Amino acid sequence: MTTADTTVTERRNTVPAPPGDAGAPRWLRHATDVTDPVLREAVLSLHPRARAVAGYHLGWWDERGRPVAAGWGKAVRPALVLLSARAAGAAPGTGAGCAAAVQLAHDSSLLHDDIIDRDETRRNRPAAWRAFGVAGALLAGDAMLALAASLIQREDLGAPATAALNEAVQQFIGGQFEDMAFEERAEVSLAECSTMAARKTGALMGAACRLGALAGRADGERAAGLEAFGRSLGLAFQHVDDLLGIWGDPERTGKPAGADLHARKKSLPVVAALDSGGPEAARLAELYARDPSLDDPGTLRHAAALVERAGGRERTAGLAGRHLREALDHLGALELPPSRTRPLRDLAHWLTARDH
Amino acid sequence: MTTADTTVTERRNTVPAPPGDAGAPRWLRHATDVTDPVLREAVLSLHPRARAVAGYHLGWWDERGRPVAAGWGKAVRPALVLLSARAAGAAPGTGAGCAAAVQLAHDSSLLHDDIIDRDETRRNRPAAWRAFGVAGALLAGDAMLALAASLIQREDLGAPATAALNEAVQQFIGGQFEDMAFEERAEVSLAECSTMAARKTGALMGAACRLGALAGRADGERAAGLEAFGRSLGLAFQHVDDLLGIWGDPERTGKPAGADLHARKKSLPVVAALDSGGPEAARLAELYARDPSLDDPGTLRHAAALVERAGGRERTAGLAGRHLREALDHLGALELPPSRTRPLRDLAHWLTARDH
Repeated sequence: MTTADTTVTERRNTVPAPPGDAGAPRWLRHATDVTDPVLREAVLSLHPRARAVAGYHLGWWDERGRPVAAGWGKAVRPALVLLSARAAGAAPGTGAGCAAAVQLAHDSSLLHDDIIDRDETRRNRPAAWRAFGVAGALLAGDAMLALAASLIQREDLGAPATAALNEAVQQFIGGQFEDMAFEERAEVSLAECSTMAARKTGALMGAACRLGALAGRADGERAAGLEAFGRSLGLAFQHVDDLLGIWGDPERTGKPAGADLHARKKSLPVVAALDSGGPEAARLAELYARDPSLDDPGTLRHAAALVERAGGRERTAGLAGRHLREALDHLGALELPPSRTRPLRDLAHWLTARDH
Repeated sequence: MTTADTTVTERRNTVPAPPGDAGAPRWLRHATDVTDPVLREAVLSLHPRARAVAGYHLGWWDERGRPVAAGWGKAVRPALVLLSARAAGAAPGTGAGCAAAVQLAHDSSLLHDDIIDRDETRRNRPAAWRAFGVAGALLAGDAMLALAASLIQREDLGAPATAALNEAVQQFIGGQFEDMAFEERAEVSLAECSTMAARKTGALMGAACRLGALAGRADGERAAGLEAFGRSLGLAFQHVDDLLGIWGDPERTGKPAGADLHARKKSLPVVAALDSGGPEAARLAELYARDPSLDDPGTLRHAAALVERAGGRERTAGLAGRHLREALDHLGALELPPSRTRPLRDLAHWLTARDH
């Protein structure tokens, strides 16, 4: 762990400069650069065993604690925090503690979701419960959730910030409960599917923007507007995720082809297809009910074609586009200088057009 | 759930009067009466599925949501919060929100511990993961942990209160990691055993007292003294638990005879016996290493006798007594009016002399 310590110190001494207006990928890299040292310092405060699991999950160390550079994902939520603070007029780097907190809460839920779904891989590596056992991953997830609350409290933004995180956590737990229930139910409506996505993904992205706004000392109206932007963008993001879960290129997404169909997920494209009422809907319903018919690549391709012919792909893409426009409208309504909100707009477009 | 709602309203309208100086059992009942309606109101704010699991675990409802009166335990931690507030000079009932928060954090860890240890029963009923599945119990535990943080935040006691809860949560997670590691190790020292107990039990009891002190607007010195009282009492409490885990009467404890030996726990009496170096230590070590020799009642009685003859029982009882005296010394050093601290003293004596 000495290596990790040294890295924190080195990185702290060179605060990364924000990029120019060079588009979303650079803002995401910047968010990683700003948030990673704060995350490392926070995780080092954990009990050594919780720290080992957390650092493995966050892609810093292998299962024996040796440094690797697997990373902790695209840094979408930290970027939303930092760019919302920037939109509110704050100096670069403002909100780094909140960015780390939001990422920790998100990763806590990923650790626990992988236990629940028995997902064997995460970010192209064995999931933490595979590497450290269910007990280790469960407790480390708890430790990361409590650490997220500690980081928010240390930012000295008062009760509204703590409440924003806690409420988002309750929302995504509710969303996860609903997601699980959908898998056991024969029928799920589009409205239920949207509510679930709003809870599971929209709430934390909304909280990320609100926390950035609070860190940037935005007034109540702007904090609410930025939160609304984050919530709508979260829905668009989730629907793009749903499309990639069926039609994504395994080389780009890191997931097997048709992963969501294989897991019989009731994601939005599937629910929309089942809702269409045509002959494809009936054949898809039959495939979802039959066991183990979704195990070979041919049947998976057939199921994906059925979803597409029943309009599930188009409808999901349409909804993703609608939520993106809603998000941009919320941002526009704030009447902030366009130069300050442009990174958020760029990020929103990029996230909705991404292929991984 | 209508029944539960009605109960909250009814109870809120009649704030329970504190008992006279009638001893610890009445203070514990009082803590239940004061805390239960706050807990119920908080749990009702959860997602319906998280609420169902939490309410089942807390003994309010059966697995189908029908009211039962199984209860949520002895209310030791809520009593510590409320009586610490009283010791600090606060009006009766002060600290109820903190009491509910501490109980929720404690119950969140019980939900997760039962998943980890595969314990089938809790408070004489099927454990929540048996009734609702691992996923339901895991997510409900997360929801209760986040809800505990929300309750503290709503008390408006500022960062010191939030920090007290968060730090205790990290401590008990660390203690749980150590407890698990002990089961896999051949040798554990008495010092390691005490550190584990301090983390697993002492930290949250200390935090309970500190939160009560903060709710009662105690100054920094008194808050620290009450926390030290709670930490020492927590160690005494844990050691009594360790004694009951081997020699407790199943009819009183609700656990099978010799439960900790059957689970091959490295609790303090066992570690002290193994540490004694005599012939009993060697035979006990052999029994712990051999599989499946601790499965029949005769062998369990033999193992318990070995622990006792090796001095494990006496040494543990001695340590429990020492920590009780330390706790009372911390309380005495605060120079508060004896009438205000007497309920805490009574509770400390009662908890260390209990048989369940």
